[in-house]
Amino acid sequence: MAKLWAGRFSKDSNALLDEFNASISFDKELWKQDIQGSKAHAQMLCSCKILTQSEYESILRGLEEIEGEIERGEFIFKLSDEDIHMSIEGALTQKIGEAGKKLHTARSRNDQVALDFRLYVLQSNQEIRSLLLNVIDTLLNIASNHTQTLLAGMTHLQHAQPINLGFHLVAWCMGLVRDYERMSESYKRNNLCPLGSGALAGVPYATSREMTSRSLGFSSPTLNAMDSVSDRDFALDLLYEISMIMMHISRIAEELVLWSSYEFGYISFSDEYSTGSSIMPQKKNPDVAELLRGKSGRAYGNLISLLVVMKGLPLAYNKDTQEDKEGVFDSVKTALISLEILDKALQTLTFHTQKMEKMAKVGHLTATDLADFLVQKCNVPFREAHHITGKVVAYAEGRGVDISELEEGEIRGIDERIGEGVKSVLDLKASMNARDSYGGTSENQTKAQISTLKAWLNGVKNG
Amino acid sequence: MAKLWAGRFSKDSNALLDEFNASISFDKELWKQDIQGSKAHAQMLCSCKILTQSEYESILRGLEEIEGEIERGEFIFKLSDEDIHMSIEGALTQKIGEAGKKLHTARSRNDQVALDFRLYVLQSNQEIRSLLLNVIDTLLNIASNHTQTLLAGMTHLQHAQPINLGFHLVAWCMGLVRDYERMSESYKRNNLCPLGSGALAGVPYATSREMTSRSLGFSSPTLNAMDSVSDRDFALDLLYEISMIMMHISRIAEELVLWSSYEFGYISFSDEYSTGSSIMPQKKNPDVAELLRGKSGRAYGNLISLLVVMKGLPLAYNKDTQEDKEGVFDSVKTALISLEILDKALQTLTFHTQKMEKMAKVGHLTATDLADFLVQKCNVPFREAHHITGKVVAYAEGRGVDISELEEGEIRGIDERIGEGVKSVLDLKASMNARDSYGGTSENQTKAQISTLKAWLNGVKNG
Amino acid sequence: MAKLWAGRFSKDSNALLDEFNASISFDKELWKQDIQGSKAHAQMLCSCKILTQSEYESILRGLEEIEGEIERGEFIFKLSDEDIHMSIEGALTQKIGEAGKKLHTARSRNDQVALDFRLYVLQSNQEIRSLLLNVIDTLLNIASNHTQTLLAGMTHLQHAQPINLGFHLVAWCMGLVRDYERMSESYKRNNLCPLGSGALAGVPYATSREMTSRSLGFSSPTLNAMDSVSDRDFALDLLYEISMIMMHISRIAEELVLWSSYEFGYISFSDEYSTGSSIMPQKKNPDVAELLRGKSGRAYGNLISLLVVMKGLPLAYNKDTQEDKEGVFDSVKTALISLEILDKALQTLTFHTQKMEKMAKVGHLTATDLADFLVQKCNVPFREAHHITGKVVAYAEGRGVDISELEEGEIRGIDERIGEGVKSVLDLKASMNARDSYGGTSENQTKAQISTLKAWLNGVKNG
Amino acid sequence: MAKLWAGRFSKDSNALLDEFNASISFDKELWKQDIQGSKAHAQMLCSCKILTQSEYESILRGLEEIEGEIERGEFIFKLSDEDIHMSIEGALTQKIGEAGKKLHTARSRNDQVALDFRLYVLQSNQEIRSLLLNVIDTLLNIASNHTQTLLAGMTHLQHAQPINLGFHLVAWCMGLVRDYERMSESYKRNNLCPLGSGALAGVPYATSREMTSRSLGFSSPTLNAMDSVSDRDFALDLLYEISMIMMHISRIAEELVLWSSYEFGYISFSDEYSTGSSIMPQKKNPDVAELLRGKSGRAYGNLISLLVVMKGLPLAYNKDTQEDKEGVFDSVKTALISLEILDKALQTLTFHTQKMEKMAKVGHLTATDLADFLVQKCNVPFREAHHITGKVVAYAEGRGVDISELEEGEIRGIDERIGEGVKSVLDLKASMNARDSYGGTSENQTKAQISTLKAWLNGVKNG
Repeated sequence: MAKLWAGRFSKDSNALLDEFNASISFDKELWKQDIQGSKAHAQMLCSCKILTQSEYESILRGLEEIEGEIERGEFIFKLSDEDIHMSIEGALTQKIGEAGKKLHTARSRNDQVALDFRLYVLQSNQEIRSLLLNVIDTLLNIASNHTQTLLAGMTHLQHAQPINLGFHLVAWCMGLVRDYERMSESYKRNNLCPLGSGALAGVPYATSREMTSRSLGFSSPTLNAMDSVSDRDFALDLLYEISMIMMHISRIAEELVLWSSYEFGYISFSDEYSTGSSIMPQKKNPDVAELLRGKSGRAYGNLISLLVVMKGLPLAYNKDTQEDKEGVFDSVKTALISLEILDKALQTLTFHTQKMEKMAKVGHLTATDLADFLVQKCNVPFREAHHITGKVVAYAEGRGVDISELEEGEIRGIDERIGEGVKSVLDLKASMNARDSYGGTSENQTKAQISTLKAWLNGVKNG
Repeated sequence: MAKLWAGRFSKDSNALLDEFNASISFDKELWKQDIQGSKAHAQMLCSCKILTQSEYESILRGLEEIEGEIERGEFIFKLSDEDIHMSIEGALTQKIGEAGKKLHTARSRNDQVALDFRLYVLQSNQEIRSLLLNVIDTLLNIASNHTQTLLAGMTHLQHAQPINLGFHLVAWCMGLVRDYERMSESYKRNNLCPLGSGALAGVPYATSREMTSRSLGFSSPTLNAMDSVSDRDFALDLLYEISMIMMHISRIAEELVLWSSYEFGYISFSDEYSTGSSIMPQKKNPDVAELLRGKSGRAYGNLISLLVVMKGLPLAYNKDTQEDKEGVFDSVKTALISLEILDKALQTLTFHTQKMEKMAKVGHLTATDLADFLVQKCNVPFREAHHITGKVVAYAEGRGVDISELEEGEIRGIDERIGEGVKSVLDLKASMNARDSYGGTSENQTKAQISTLKAWLNGVKNG
Repeated sequence: MAKLWAGRFSKDSNALLDEFNASISFDKELWKQDIQGSKAHAQMLCSCKILTQSEYESILRGLEEIEGEIERGEFIFKLSDEDIHMSIEGALTQKIGEAGKKLHTARSRNDQVALDFRLYVLQSNQEIRSLLLNVIDTLLNIASNHTQTLLAGMTHLQHAQPINLGFHLVAWCMGLVRDYERMSESYKRNNLCPLGSGALAGVPYATSREMTSRSLGFSSPTLNAMDSVSDRDFALDLLYEISMIMMHISRIAEELVLWSSYEFGYISFSDEYSTGSSIMPQKKNPDVAELLRGKSGRAYGNLISLLVVMKGLPLAYNKDTQEDKEGVFDSVKTALISLEILDKALQTLTFHTQKMEKMAKVGHLTATDLADFLVQKCNVPFREAHHITGKVVAYAEGRGVDISELEEGEIRGIDERIGEGVKSVLDLKASMNARDSYGGTSENQTKAQISTLKAWLNGVKNG
Repeated sequence: MAKLWAGRFSKDSNALLDEFNASISFDKELWKQDIQGSKAHAQMLCSCKILTQSEYESILRGLEEIEGEIERGEFIFKLSDEDIHMSIEGALTQKIGEAGKKLHTARSRNDQVALDFRLYVLQSNQEIRSLLLNVIDTLLNIASNHTQTLLAGMTHLQHAQPINLGFHLVAWCMGLVRDYERMSESYKRNNLCPLGSGALAGVPYATSREMTSRSLGFSSPTLNAMDSVSDRDFALDLLYEISMIMMHISRIAEELVLWSSYEFGYISFSDEYSTGSSIMPQKKNPDVAELLRGKSGRAYGNLISLLVVMKGLPLAYNKDTQEDKEGVFDSVKTALISLEILDKALQTLTFHTQKMEKMAKVGHLTATDLADFLVQKCNVPFREAHHITGKVVAYAEGRGVDISELEEGEIRGIDERIGEGVKSVLDLKASMNARDSYGGTSENQTKAQISTLKAWLNGVKNG
């Protein structure tokens, strides 16, 4: 198909420019949305008497034929078609003649691409949210089985306080829950239809934007045509949301890598979800977790790319905006496969709970309990209790044992303010269950958190 | 005040480390939130019988004295205090003795900093939103006066179609409206209280997190203690939201710079909001607009910084997280002053509407109308109409005139398919008003957009 | 080909993992470098008697057959081959049997991928530098023709001082010259061979890394094996260098967009290097310049992506590093096509020098000359001269003329300190040529700058 | 001091604008460079007879007085002075009258700020390089003591092959060595003097830019005045270089965090360079390492910020560029303190070599040696050797021992192709020393690497 805008030009643009300028190599990803939008546009043009019924029907038939060809892999995307819109319109006109050209009445490529891309972004938002729920569900199921599994809770990667594994896994869920909610909100906010905005100023036809908006499932048409063709906020929102998901996943992945090391030995990946080394036959590498961690890089990069593209752009449409798509496609694919892989890898993970419990006995995890005991039972101000506890830890280290292994008398000999019953507060499970404040790690509280999240999960799935 | 955790250490940490490690030089910004949180915490401890009434009262009195000292600039922040929490607690203990130390019961620095920072972020969210409304209000007021002011609507920085200035200014509003809505949503989502989460696992006291949450104005306590001390999503949300605001402002600023150039000559900044050159006395520089454009850089940088900090961090609290604050403080200050300056600069802007109208007569702006006329009135398929129009433009350029200056007969001689009445469709204002589809640039539609936004503005202002 | 490391695994990894884990879909880009490296490795192994001569010869023959197949598009890259290294080695073993498996002796995938990728980066460095020289050459040729073409030199996008177009184009060159030099330096610094580093610790064979390094054109082998397999500095250098190139190009592109607007009217793109609008037939859009401007986004994004991937990675090789390639490939392609397109677009640009000269007469460009005249000839301190000049400008604006249009007596009447001969210093060309300090805009200095750069260009091309 | 460019303005710019526009709050950091530049400029003006000897002397005296006042903390920087240049010039004129105003002859704020900032960047480059050498020196000294200390070399955070600690520390050095070299190169490339470029076009005075360039220690003046005032490549280079340093440090820091965990137990920080917990008295937190890791975030952020600021800026100077400084100041301070802290922390680190050696016996580290033995001594193709080794590992795991603990006969019974002497190749130290290829981990090779780097260190220190 000849360049549509070639009328006044005396020379053909050359091949290099075509390669540089054309977006067909990547925006063909939008074929489904482009056809979806064209169908709705044609139907509206027909309702508004801009197309006759028979023109509309032949357009519809043509678009469906093209849809079939693309689905079956028979459709050929040519560089000379420039973009997906030209590509499909060109094919349509070849199939049905004059009527095909009329489809472009009362729209322009500027609102057409804004529509296609927005549909893609909204549909991707839904797919990603659905996978987020799967991972949360998987984590809650595992957590339910481990509300009594002792684990050394860490800060600064140092043993800090005894917790249970279920509580730790609930913490993993929380970021993903926020991700889901953030995406639900932006879905609603961005669910507006730009079709019919024309090149930048609306169209001089008696069309109904309300009609296309409704038939495409939007909540309403966008308010200002100029903004509609130059706005890419909806795409930036998705890039940010995916950056957050990948950041949360990178934190989970870091722990999966640590936990699967010899030094920790807390988990094993299933054979399916780990890989070997070409030269070191004994190794079982957590490649999946490493890739999940590393893929935060591309998500962040794609976000910054589009922020840079949009910086300082005057209104309305500028060609710079064509740079919006590849990063979004890449981030969407990254999020989808990462969530799916994470879900599967978690489902097939083995937890070595004995090793976890063994490590929980290292590092004086109940030192804080000792301090709290001093405050609550022995009437020692907190900050001084802290100092006394430091002395007890130093004493235990001098003897080469954990403070939980010291005898009552031995402990009380260190400082006269240490009261009776100190030995019993040093039990790990008792310590964990003592943290029974709302949101705490006690078995009761952990179970309550799991219940709350399961109820939330049912809520969003059903509503 | 001696290092609180120095108990087991045999040597003092040295001065270099103090400088490196301490956050007091920047987190003193949080003094108000820290005292606010401590008051609520003390009140709850008293209600739960962990503090006596008299301990509570002396804590309250002490905190209020400190508040006064800081407000009057009398309080001295010392590097050796490490952070704002230590600084205030140390001063409190000096003032009221033992009871001061008890304030730290049932909380830790991890949940304390999470609380202070979240309060700061939520309060900043509200301040920024309030300034967004001011700018939108200002833009709508100006727009109301210019729904008949002709302007060359641009795409690719090329004249495209006639629009009115009011319509263009409404387009400027739209991004800011989305910014407001995005921030309202995240405010609600993030309005949860982490206080009482302890170091990572909850606290072994019979406290009421619900009570502190309520008294501090949160909707509820956070669900999981471990997540509560390691989550910084609320800060990232704000950094992203400010990046979007500054991106939108950079686009407005770019147009302000262009419009105030000799070449455009559309606007003049007031003397108050422009500056001169030290060496070129005739110049009046749009420094304000340039800085507004450039400040997108730091907003983006602050966002990426925190995303990088959080990447791959294991649970729960890690010291890396201390790097979260300076960027947020900087972005908040940037957003606040930028919105305020933009508002003032817009209010005092002079619009040279005659120059705008003069330029609208350059560049065959009604060419699309000709094409549409051919389609609608002369029954020419759109794509062919496009070619015919190209020929008319080429003819006008050959003669050195705008197509609006051609005579009826002259035009119709170019192609026999051009019908009667063509001359009248080339009028600029008629063309603008012809784009009367929803969201279009016609005077009616522009007024409707302004009304819709004014109604929205009243809605959000009133609650 | 079966997974090479499957020995100890009881289950096959599943299809999803394959897709997630495999790099073959993008690292096939490295096929040439992989074969190049394998040939050098085989030759060395033969010299060191680790391979027999006939084994070496059959490996060489096999690799050359594969090379031919890939070049002719006959080679099939399968997802199950995981990566380009496995893919080629698998094909080799199928062709020549046992000997093929021996090729992997004394190397591992870790050093193999480090080698392939480094070769790709170094070769790309050379290609990009070559295109930089082309653009510089083109700019200098145009500049040579315009050392007398008056142009309004701008600061803050406001007319500031008269310059010539040639001088402005030399300024465009300077960033690209620095880009070239930065890349020459990193080429030398990074031209080291990692092959033979093994998995992380060297190899237990009497090999010669010196020999492979030399035969592959490196200056020497890398010093430490562990660093060799985990270092990606060379790739980050390239991503930064390309970010700088694209930043420089974005600045040139911004001016090309401005200059081709109706408001400036300084240049026209050739028909070959501009595009039309689908709906506005009269438009000629600077799409090329807009895309060149926008592509800075992806260059920056790719840089930040890899910086994020590398953040906090422990030694030695981690799978995260697999994320290093796609961004580099994308940035390299972006730089290559952008430089080529920019060169062509510049070569075919039309400069409207009359419009430039006309605009130079707007905006009191010689105001600074007046100030300097007051200082140098009338003995007025600079800062006061600045004030007097301000008064003259205000007077001219009051009369609606440029200061160059005022009469001698008129000017001298404004302030008694203004001396005789003031009218002559206001001539634009005289003003331009008065800036004859080293690096200045006078015709002489501009020509000298062009000569210096041409000499530099000859130097780097020949040396 | 009144605004110098206020001549033509009828209203004062208001306070908000002052705060927004002024850079004095941060660019006072450049006071030393500003005075240094002014002295050189005054001397040149005197040599060129633009200033009289006595004017020059009074300027010099005035500048030195100001220098003293600033050093003693007596100088008051006022917001109304706008920037450091105005601030110092204003003070000078107050001190010495008329002559003070003449100092600004033949320069403008545009080249003045370009000079000051470049001096700052170059001086920072030197300071940072000097600290890099300290860290490298410290690492080499430690490495020298540990060329026989066994350590489990890791890939994917899994035990891979036996190495020695010295070898690992040399790997840490390598990135820092590259950082040093990268900075040496950019120092030379950027060591050019912009002073005398004027506002954008050179100056109309018979000055000598060669003279100021030489007296300020530059290699030559910059070539093109317009580029000189709009170029910030030198600052971006530093931001990139610091990003790379902080990235390398983040990797070292990650290992320091891991190694100081209970699970690894490889190192202890000295009490001076670690901190405690406010609530958990037993903890010794690697805060220093965590902050070093996290500070990569701000370094990356500052880089991206300036890249964004510069994107799409037209020539020549734009106010956006004022956003260049704060990020650079922050990155420089970050690099300086981080390198100093890292150096000190490393010097005071305790290495638990027995724990390292104990862990090296876990994970079948000599499995690769077995594979190599099969290839080299038993004539088994490598890939098959890999499979056999897998079977041996599986056998050992079945028995719950390390492969190094199996008996000769036991091993040979697993596969008949396993030859005599297999037991001896499984010794860890023998295995380490067998990797004696250039760059390998054998004691000899490690020592050679240390020698090479020490020689390099001496070279750069003395040359």
